Amino acid sequence: MKNKPKKIGVGLVGFGTVGQGVAALLSDAESPATAKTGVHLRLLRICDVDLERPREVAVDSALLTSRLEDILEDEDISIGIELIGGVDGALAVVEKLLRAGKDVVTANKALLASHGAELLKLAESVGKQIRFEASCAGGIPLIGALEEGLVANRIDGLKGIVNGTCNYILTSMTEKQESFSRALSEAQEAGYAEADPTLDINGMDSAHKLAILAMLAFGTQVSLDNIYVEGIDRIEQTDLAFAAELGYVMKLLAIGEVHPEGISLRVHPTFLPRGSLLAQVGGVYNAVSVYGHATGETLYYGMGAGRMPTASAVMADVIALARGPDSCRCRSLSEWTGRKLPIVSIEDIESRYYIRVTALDEPGVMAKVSGVLGSKQISLSAILQHESEPAKPVPVIIMTHLAREGSVREALAEISELDVVSEHPVCIRVAEESV
Amino acid sequence: MKNKPKKIGVGLVGFGTVGQGVAALLSDAESPATAKTGVHLRLLRICDVDLERPREVAVDSALLTSRLEDILEDEDISIGIELIGGVDGALAVVEKLLRAGKDVVTANKALLASHGAELLKLAESVGKQIRFEASCAGGIPLIGALEEGLVANRIDGLKGIVNGTCNYILTSMTEKQESFSRALSEAQEAGYAEADPTLDINGMDSAHKLAILAMLAFGTQVSLDNIYVEGIDRIEQTDLAFAAELGYVMKLLAIGEVHPEGISLRVHPTFLPRGSLLAQVGGVYNAVSVYGHATGETLYYGMGAGRMPTASAVMADVIALARGPDSCRCRSLSEWTGRKLPIVSIEDIESRYYIRVTALDEPGVMAKVSGVLGSKQISLSAILQHESEPAKPVPVIIMTHLAREGSVREALAEISELDVVSEHPVCIRVAEESV
Repeated sequence: MKNKPKKIGVGLVGFGTVGQGVAALLSDAESPATAKTGVHLRLLRICDVDLERPREVAVDSALLTSRLEDILEDEDISIGIELIGGVDGALAVVEKLLRAGKDVVTANKALLASHGAELLKLAESVGKQIRFEASCAGGIPLIGALEEGLVANRIDGLKGIVNGTCNYILTSMTEKQESFSRALSEAQEAGYAEADPTLDINGMDSAHKLAILAMLAFGTQVSLDNIYVEGIDRIEQTDLAFAAELGYVMKLLAIGEVHPEGISLRVHPTFLPRGSLLAQVGGVYNAVSVYGHATGETLYYGMGAGRMPTASAVMADVIALARGPDSCRCRSLSEWTGRKLPIVSIEDIESRYYIRVTALDEPGVMAKVSGVLGSKQISLSAILQHESEPAKPVPVIIMTHLAREGSVREALAEISELDVVSEHPVCIRVAEESV
Repeated sequence: MKNKPKKIGVGLVGFGTVGQGVAALLSDAESPATAKTGVHLRLLRICDVDLERPREVAVDSALLTSRLEDILEDEDISIGIELIGGVDGALAVVEKLLRAGKDVVTANKALLASHGAELLKLAESVGKQIRFEASCAGGIPLIGALEEGLVANRIDGLKGIVNGTCNYILTSMTEKQESFSRALSEAQEAGYAEADPTLDINGMDSAHKLAILAMLAFGTQVSLDNIYVEGIDRIEQTDLAFAAELGYVMKLLAIGEVHPEGISLRVHPTFLPRGSLLAQVGGVYNAVSVYGHATGETLYYGMGAGRMPTASAVMADVIALARGPDSCRCRSLSEWTGRKLPIVSIEDIESRYYIRVTALDEPGVMAKVSGVLGSKQISLSAILQHESEPAKPVPVIIMTHLAREGSVREALAEISELDVVSEHPVCIRVAEESV
């Protein structure tokens, strides 16, 4: 029943930060993409003008070339990945790849914001595809959501944080009460802002992404001139402080809305109510809310930049192309999901725990309870007990550090047997920030 | 260049809440899905055991049938949608649809949690697809993200809120300090809990969804027995209050994690730090965080249930099937994005505004400033001015109700000309909860 696995040749143009991430994913001998889809990708060529610069990802030097023709003329390469950035040079590369009969994947937002419509037309005319999941919001599959998941929706609007540098700076200004210039310097030291951060902080990078998102969401050509843009470079600490008093947090938002008379497109600093989801998006993270007529609001959150998140998005497009017209989704899904991984019991899970013990307010109670916990290697991170009348049962709240569920259960059983404890303790797991 | 549009016949089994939503989307003469993809869907048959019950969505009565054979035997129908719910009856319907040569779309989480692997195998063996975006998290394109957007990622874990009823109850208990039973009654009155809410509040509905998500994320068969399940039916208000003091919020989480020795799967009430994104997800909303080895954390948020959000997810699958192997993505994308919608100027946008005016602390200053605003039809929602030394410039913060940007700009220009005002006012837009 199992068909021959599909082998697809890939050529990479641009071996910088993201290019190295893509090369790493393509060279992964245990590629999850292959396991999930049955598609075998082969990286056949890497083209870059500078082959001497040291790279962090090692590749077979026979793959390297400085001649684009080595990719264009290689008939085994059916997918070309453009990661050189910039507009004019990248435009020429993408056009040549399409004309040479390659499908194209690009992460280049500036290119798409200025030449997206014409590149889609060119791709259509030569019967090839151009895909660009990585151009907006990095590792977040936002383009896929707009193109596929939300396909049945009339999109009424979208708004989001699409520039991690600005969000990092605004988060620092808010949390550490820093000035803009101080927060920018720190972002540069931390590697979250370029030496020349102009395109980020003046809002143009966000405008590029908004142009692409609006094109897909609303079905319209967008020129950068259509977008009203204000950056964050003139934001003063004093306004963040006043707004905080009023319950607001500042974010640089890209906003596209459908009005009866047309669409509006804008990028500007915006105050959001502190309790809103977008207001909670801190540091270099991105998040975009999309308002569909059937779904209502959906929101997508994740790393908007960086080597591996962006490479993940590039790979999603490469795989989509490689699966191609005759892919059998069910066969690969059936194989992938047909595996049987071993199951770890709840007893062996580690978590933090909230434990409420109802105990007599007598000397020695805490010693007994914490003695039981200590005997099971469970250490405490916080204890809370309110004042109460002597000798009446009182609730004692205990927060633990990471502990094994099985040990906690044993401890709870012992604690409930203590003569100073009047009820079986209540126990609730406490989540970490990660899984 | 324009190819003949593709016409695809669809048969619907189950004409209840979601079925009516799907029928409404399929009958939309201005279907956004058709505009985006060039695919014309035709709803050819609706099968339901009860054709007499009044429906909110009107359809041509000639479409209605109580005989499944009318769909199975109709060669113009290539896609069957199963929306009858339950396990055994639905299993028989899906098997018959596949064996009759139809691709299948289903929203049935109980069916997939118990028979997902075998249905994927059956679909493969007959060369058809079964798709189920609507089975988890309603309108959120989460299955698509796992299958496509994150395809290049090894998924290390996922955790999320996948039952809106429980989240509504826990949100009420937290915000209104209500007991579980009171919050449940209110949820039932508001239509957010079933008359028999057992499967929701005991965690089994979340377990069904976790089984499906884990199958896709980790590539493994999952049986419901593999999942440790605790519901919210024994949660006491007192623990929510104590946890609030400590900075935590309770959510019912479905959690899947990869450990060196296997996977762990569990559903239980969990305390989350108040500042975390999942802790901010209130009411009937769902949200799921997925941890990929390349992307890091990505999070997906939206309505997890309801007629139109769920119908939106069903339609995404139908369109994906209808686009089929020979769809030309670029042609439809090029047409959809090649339109030219009119652009609304920033001057015509309505927003709320934060305005900081630096003014002399003299009698009559507020009267002058607010007089200018009033003359432009801008009304104020809040004013903040701290005490200061007389006759020194002080910042005055003004929050407006919705106002037109053009009017605000005119007002700011006039205010900056006032002799009591020492600097051009600072002005920052304030976002609503929606776009």
